[in-house]
Amino acid sequence: TQTTRIAVTPGDGIGPEVVAAAIHCLEALRAKHLLALEWTRFPWPSHAWHEEHGESWPTDALAQLKAYDAILLGALGDPGPINDPDRYLLSDSVSLSPLLEMRKGFDQWVCERPARLLPGARQYLKDDRAKDIDMLVIRENSEGEYVSQGGRLRQGTTDEVATQMEVFTHRATERIIRYGFEQARKRAAERAKHERVRTFKTLDGRSCESQVCVITKRNALRHWGDLYTEVFEAVSKDYPDVATHHELVDAACMKFVQCPWAFDVVVASNLQGDILTDLAAVLSGGMGVAPSCNLNPTDTDMPSMFEPTHGSAPDIAGKGIADPTAMLFTTARMLEWLGQKDSKLAVAGKELFDAVAADLTEKGSEQRDTQEIKDAICKRLTS
Amino acid sequence: TQTTRIAVTPGDGIGPEVVAAAIHCLEALRAKHLLALEWTRFPWPSHAWHEEHGESWPTDALAQLKAYDAILLGALGDPGPINDPDRYLLSDSVSLSPLLEMRKGFDQWVCERPARLLPGARQYLKDDRAKDIDMLVIRENSEGEYVSQGGRLRQGTTDEVATQMEVFTHRATERIIRYGFEQARKRAAERAKHERVRTFKTLDGRSCESQVCVITKRNALRHWGDLYTEVFEAVSKDYPDVATHHELVDAACMKFVQCPWAFDVVVASNLQGDILTDLAAVLSGGMGVAPSCNLNPTDTDMPSMFEPTHGSAPDIAGKGIADPTAMLFTTARMLEWLGQKDSKLAVAGKELFDAVAADLTEKGSEQRDTQEIKDAICKRLTS
Ligand SMILES: CC(C)[C@H](C(=O)O)[C@@H](O)C(=O)O
Ligand SMILES: CC(C)[C@H](C(=O)O)[C@@H](O)C(=O)O
Repeated sequence: TQTTRIAVTPGDGIGPEVVAAAIHCLEALRAKHLLALEWTRFPWPSHAWHEEHGESWPTDALAQLKAYDAILLGALGDPGPINDPDRYLLSDSVSLSPLLEMRKGFDQWVCERPARLLPGARQYLKDDRAKDIDMLVIRENSEGEYVSQGGRLRQGTTDEVATQMEVFTHRATERIIRYGFEQARKRAAERAKHERVRTFKTLDGRSCESQVCVITKRNALRHWGDLYTEVFEAVSKDYPDVATHHELVDAACMKFVQCPWAFDVVVASNLQGDILTDLAAVLSGGMGVAPSCNLNPTDTDMPSMFEPTHGSAPDIAGKGIADPTAMLFTTARMLEWLGQKDSKLAVAGKELFDAVAADLTEKGSEQRDTQEIKDAICKRLTS
Repeated sequence: TQTTRIAVTPGDGIGPEVVAAAIHCLEALRAKHLLALEWTRFPWPSHAWHEEHGESWPTDALAQLKAYDAILLGALGDPGPINDPDRYLLSDSVSLSPLLEMRKGFDQWVCERPARLLPGARQYLKDDRAKDIDMLVIRENSEGEYVSQGGRLRQGTTDEVATQMEVFTHRATERIIRYGFEQARKRAAERAKHERVRTFKTLDGRSCESQVCVITKRNALRHWGDLYTEVFEAVSKDYPDVATHHELVDAACMKFVQCPWAFDVVVASNLQGDILTDLAAVLSGGMGVAPSCNLNPTDTDMPSMFEPTHGSAPDIAGKGIADPTAMLFTTARMLEWLGQKDSKLAVAGKELFDAVAADLTEKGSEQRDTQEIKDAICKRLTS
């Protein structure tokens, strides 16, 4: 097999710390399974780089990263000295832009964020409501609210008008919805294998083993709401075995809290997906465990990018106390994804997932530092 | 005093049922306090009207309603026969348009949605997390994502491009943010009166008795995110006694779950406010108790509109089991608002609020039908 090459971008804040834990686990797995796996670190701390070069990452960052099979990202976002409001204002846009540039530049049009409450993870909902959360939120990652079109007319005056355009194409809508249906089928097949069949009702009363729920705000944002609804109806005809459902984004937030078990695969626009995945993450154990995958499933020349959903948490950076769990789940998902080319990687990914999950089950939210968690998981991998 | 006149629009689904309860309470209060209060019903069931006239409400609906001091709305949204997908698709846009038209036509630029967990209300969050929710979400209600600009190019083809424009003006941003600061001060004064002082830290370490948190997604939607941030900074200079805070909308969803007590007044854009208020409502007792006020605080010729946050719930309509609690809290808020002109109305509003809250505390989520709840509350009012 050809060697699989990973670009590791530790990023800012706690990024380097959780990435170090991931690399330890990758080393353990490589030694154990003799994986044909290599990685290269790109330490581009966004604020420091910006101070020196006037940009967050090198100009040719994407060109450098493109040569790799996948990108493993720690976290982006460095507010600089926390009490300097100017830098604080700057930080959001400056240090996060590489994230959006990678998604766009590598056409990572799918953002997959699974939400499942694993034993040991923190529960915020009463009555074991969260216990049955097991959904995959699929966020459209290439257009919509994130096209960066618009501007500021008469900027800084009391007559200012700021605009932001949302652009949705049939092509991108169709591919993300179809991807959702495919994942729904895969999840149902996987559940059937483990005798964990779930049942979802269709509008006409049939029972299906999987469901796709599409989210819009079509009662207010009509144009793309209708486009999504029509494409959803059309694509669903190819998947009569999958139940379909629609929710308005505001109602979806409510229902994530009230009846999270009613969702299987959820397909949402870029911004609505962004919002819903943070909510789904917190309901299913919090940012400490939530992985995020930015995938390009169509062009194998383009690297996909894997990052924990959490941010750079500058307030706890450098203290060695960041929880690497989300990063390790993310790394497991990356290996699984790379397993499409080299099945040994998929095996390693599954092993890593199981080790992280077992650690979580055993220790729950016990207070441990980064190294302790990492060591416990590495030990599981090698023993 | 001049007679205060209310336009009552029962609307669809459970709307007429909960409105009937409100009217009973209004009658009781009018008799008790000899209020100079009158109301007129406008029974415009949106779907039936649409079938007959091709529009959801009469063409001159707004002109008719403009003559009143306030509008009390039941609920809009009638899907028609529930299993007819065509009508179902239609319903969202057709039967809800009057809501958006009233907000626009009467320039109800503030949407106020308080979220406070009252004793007896349903709790979804563990560990009494919800107990200390006491926030007022102020939604910008006049522009932003809801300007209805955009369209569908090559509609229905695989080359379709749908666009939606978001428009934000300095003027509307400034007035809503300033309104937020004013409310923060009022809330702090009210709390001080009842010895329930809360404390919020500023970035530079001072303690304030109130806080305004502004929500944006400025790391992705830069243009208006920056406008909001700059206006917020500028306006805050006039309110050194109020702590300021900023959250990204996705993080705000998380924090509403994790630490709802950290929020006091929250100012958000039209769509982000829509999403956050549904979440805040469910976390603080659910749709069954959440009021919503669409206010025009600047032009006294324009009626403000009061509606429960819940929808028309067609699945339980006509059964007499709808919970009128949210509608009655809404009615109380309307009376309080109208109290600006006639202080007796404010007294009546306070009484209604107390009666509904007392009923909720006593009965909690006990299963009762509409009439039982209404009777219990009317009895409190008259005894
Ligand atoms: C950092 C930010 C630009 C990003 C987004 O909005 O996509 C983040 O919130 C995420 O969810 O990955
Ligand atoms: C019905 C709909 C158009 C409306 C909105 O989006 O404003 C509703 O969700 C609300 O919150 O009042």
